[in-house]
Amino acid sequence: MARIIGIDPGLRTLGWGVIDTSGSRLAHVANGLCRSSGVDLAARLLSLYEQLTAVVAQFAPEQAAIEQTFVNKDGAGTLKLGQARGIAMLVPAQAGLSIGEYAPNSVKKAVVGVGHADKAQILHMVRLQLPGAAIAGPDAADALAIAICHAHHSAGGLSAAIERARV
Amino acid sequence: MARIIGIDPGLRTLGWGVIDTSGSRLAHVANGLCRSSGVDLAARLLSLYEQLTAVVAQFAPEQAAIEQTFVNKDGAGTLKLGQARGIAMLVPAQAGLSIGEYAPNSVKKAVVGVGHADKAQILHMVRLQLPGAAIAGPDAADALAIAICHAHHSAGGLSAAIERARV
Repeated sequence: MARIIGIDPGLRTLGWGVIDTSGSRLAHVANGLCRSSGVDLAARLLSLYEQLTAVVAQFAPEQAAIEQTFVNKDGAGTLKLGQARGIAMLVPAQAGLSIGEYAPNSVKKAVVGVGHADKAQILHMVRLQLPGAAIAGPDAADALAIAICHAHHSAGGLSAAIERARV
Repeated sequence: MARIIGIDPGLRTLGWGVIDTSGSRLAHVANGLCRSSGVDLAARLLSLYEQLTAVVAQFAPEQAAIEQTFVNKDGAGTLKLGQARGIAMLVPAQAGLSIGEYAPNSVKKAVVGVGHADKAQILHMVRLQLPGAAIAGPDAADALAIAICHAHHSAGGLSAAIERARV
């Protein structure tokens, strides 16, 4: 039995989802969105930090999983996302959690069965695998999918470290 | 009289420099480097966070200044830098400091007098403006230059907010 928080990083909207896993059984605990807006980047990062810290304190996950960020040619967008992702990794690290990083394709494959799937398919499959969960939005569904991916990797005896991004 | 911390963000080496400013007079307080290494990105970000938090606690600056990151075509590099920069902005925001952001060219212009200058020129001019300061390395010199730039903008009656990056 382990409690996992999945995190889908973003500056405007950061999705999170907490599940309990016992062998191959999954149970939904909670999910939601941390939001930030305005022109003051430092204030936005601090707000995300405080919101996510409160989530981790409230639900006390034992492990964390985060999506590997897709790097594209939009440098400014990559930088913004990177700053939010720094916060998204700092908070679980500060709480002493191990953190698995998964490529978007791995997450989709774990949840939908194939490496290419749109947001609607992910939402649908997350709902099927976590029946009764009220899902706060697509970013929260993605976060739950990341947590499910981590659970599958752990249950299958695969070390999350294998998937971990090398820096 | 104000105490300013300048920060030059980076994942491997994050430079910092603290100065006191009174009108147009500048005095060196301290400078140094926060370093992180290894393959565990979350642990590195946590380490940078803890080191920089200790610096802010020790020297109690009232204002912070940070370089606007140069976004280039190396997406993976931009992402890494972004993650470190998220931490570099979070720490002063958490301490309640206002944060000015300055483009690299503004920093060079403030310290060297022209918008294009190499690291050796910056180091030389920082040494001239802060006589007697032992400088921990090029990244620490850059951080002091950022703090000097912020002092000039404040002293000149220019609001640092004008320079601030809009997100």
